[in-house]
Amino acid sequence: MKKKENLRKKAILLHKKYQGKLKTISKIALKGLKELSLIYTPGVGEVSSLIAKNKKKAKELTFKGNSVAVISDGSAVLGLGNIGPEAALPVMEGKCVIFKEFADIDAIPLVLSTQNSEEIIKIIKAIAPTFGGINLEDISAPRCFEIENRLKKELDIPVMHDDQHGTAIVVLASLINAAKVVKKNFIKFKIVINGAGAAGSAVAKFLIKAGVKDIIVVDSKGIISFNRKDLSKYKKELAHLTNPNKFSGGLKDAIKEADVFIGLSKKNILFQKDIKTMAKSPIIFALANPNPEIMPDLAIKAGAVVVATGRSDFPNQINNALVFPGIFKGALNNGISCITDKIKLQSAYALARLVKKPNPKKIIPSIFDKRVVKAIAKVVK
Amino acid sequence: MKKKENLRKKAILLHKKYQGKLKTISKIALKGLKELSLIYTPGVGEVSSLIAKNKKKAKELTFKGNSVAVISDGSAVLGLGNIGPEAALPVMEGKCVIFKEFADIDAIPLVLSTQNSEEIIKIIKAIAPTFGGINLEDISAPRCFEIENRLKKELDIPVMHDDQHGTAIVVLASLINAAKVVKKNFIKFKIVINGAGAAGSAVAKFLIKAGVKDIIVVDSKGIISFNRKDLSKYKKELAHLTNPNKFSGGLKDAIKEADVFIGLSKKNILFQKDIKTMAKSPIIFALANPNPEIMPDLAIKAGAVVVATGRSDFPNQINNALVFPGIFKGALNNGISCITDKIKLQSAYALARLVKKPNPKKIIPSIFDKRVVKAIAKVVK
Repeated sequence: MKKKENLRKKAILLHKKYQGKLKTISKIALKGLKELSLIYTPGVGEVSSLIAKNKKKAKELTFKGNSVAVISDGSAVLGLGNIGPEAALPVMEGKCVIFKEFADIDAIPLVLSTQNSEEIIKIIKAIAPTFGGINLEDISAPRCFEIENRLKKELDIPVMHDDQHGTAIVVLASLINAAKVVKKNFIKFKIVINGAGAAGSAVAKFLIKAGVKDIIVVDSKGIISFNRKDLSKYKKELAHLTNPNKFSGGLKDAIKEADVFIGLSKKNILFQKDIKTMAKSPIIFALANPNPEIMPDLAIKAGAVVVATGRSDFPNQINNALVFPGIFKGALNNGISCITDKIKLQSAYALARLVKKPNPKKIIPSIFDKRVVKAIAKVVK
Repeated sequence: MKKKENLRKKAILLHKKYQGKLKTISKIALKGLKELSLIYTPGVGEVSSLIAKNKKKAKELTFKGNSVAVISDGSAVLGLGNIGPEAALPVMEGKCVIFKEFADIDAIPLVLSTQNSEEIIKIIKAIAPTFGGINLEDISAPRCFEIENRLKKELDIPVMHDDQHGTAIVVLASLINAAKVVKKNFIKFKIVINGAGAAGSAVAKFLIKAGVKDIIVVDSKGIISFNRKDLSKYKKELAHLTNPNKFSGGLKDAIKEADVFIGLSKKNILFQKDIKTMAKSPIIFALANPNPEIMPDLAIKAGAVVVATGRSDFPNQINNALVFPGIFKGALNNGISCITDKIKLQSAYALARLVKKPNPKKIIPSIFDKRVVKAIAKVVK
């Protein structure tokens, strides 16, 4: 508790000292009237006239070409839930700093005072001419699915809900390398995913696209299957895609004989006795933040061979920051208007390949590994 | 023409070289996991939790406290007209650079793909939690009046349409000092304003608030008066406030015996023969950009004593950049949520006072005079 209290104080002090984390800066020193007449009136009028004739020129003549909007409605922020736009702003600003520091992208936080999907879609479409890409963030399921799908269809710049796809990509990369550690073929894995929100759903669908056949998704009410009568449209879609053996029950039923547990919920729900019922050489991705579904030492004592968390103070940190800077860097550099499944799969493989000889404590590169952004940006084309 | 072609080439090359003018930067060097755990998860969660309890804390803990959105729908850009959002972006970006360089404000350009007033109001209200202030820019009249009025009422952060109020403030400051040069009392001036768009209307209303009694506004169809049957709601309001002697006719009728001509239209419409009909010691503000209503040398030859333009290559540059950085600096620093008429008047007086002994070639400070932002920010409280 003392450690947590220390972190709290330090984080708040740091944010207060600098009044947040992000600032703007001019690329051109404004020394006098000469510069002013080029970057502002009258010179800027010539640039505007050129873009008025061909709006595609905006990408090369304005900040649009290297910019991403990081947009949230504050409805599903970290593990904190629906805390609203102002409270979401520090997270979005942090993400913009990561975009800058890791990929030299000019990212702008935008938090919205509405949680109405249609309004959010309208707003993002309206501001889109300003930006080269849209990173949706911390928007609750199932609204996030509709919002992202519509924007992908209706905009001509890349749109990605990072909670879904960033997570899915880094999970797949980690799984590929974890499979090497336990000497199994990941396509034949039996995988249990706990959580059917934005991340859980996206991970399940993405692993299926990568070739995995046997996935069971568990939500707060148990295994997702057609035996249940309470499934929403989106959970029905998951029921179609997963649970090939039509199991019913709870997490403890699902996890028997499973090779992999992937936790994407908010609770400490995994116990040592559950791990002991898994197949040989269990793989545990306990990704709930800040408290994993089970602490790594307990998981290892129960027989887990590879353990990953979302935290930086344990080995194998599965963090979206490994993915989104490179994805958008590649998209901006190569004029990609849609982040396709193929791009996402190749990003995962590229990320996995960076760890030459995976071992239980190293299945995924460090966030600070400078090869990461380059390797991913290279395959986004 | 060669000079103009040179400027064109230089401006376009510069924008291409740097891919625009604005970039973001982190206030905190992201050296390793220690910093990452403070600015991003898990530390940032503590900051978000604090703001969730009291959203006013966002101003001190995020970039909101020092940020302004510079928003345009691209409907009335410089002298170029309705050129759309992408083409407006270089101007907004330039404005953001001026905010940064002159007032150290983190300003973000936002261009919108809609020109529907209700939609624009909704969008700006939705993104407002992100920012400390809203600078509306290059939105055509009369839509700009409705949009600004509504946002001022419905938001708790300062909102200013700079084309209206920035222009009005710098014109009043210039007029106060021009009056000293010609040894007249500016309140007794007979003033002709050519142009009844955003700037023309706002200047007329603001000069009346400053005490001027005799103003005639002329639009493309002639003097604004109730003799005309074509007046919109907004021009009827002007007809009520101006033209006390109920003149009809065109600019050449209005300008007879006038002390001051203020040009805020797009055309070269002022001739030497018009100036010769004005009162003793004419004052000419030919503010159309980039081509003034009359060139300064011609105006002086015709008898004008004080001539100002919007251009940097003549004396007395009347430019909004003298005003908006200081206004927003003061508003952000002092927690001002509404830029009142009193604030605007005091800003004009503060700006005028910076020129100790006005003379025909110096009625207004240089944009690069470092006292300007401080002097204005000081009176915004």
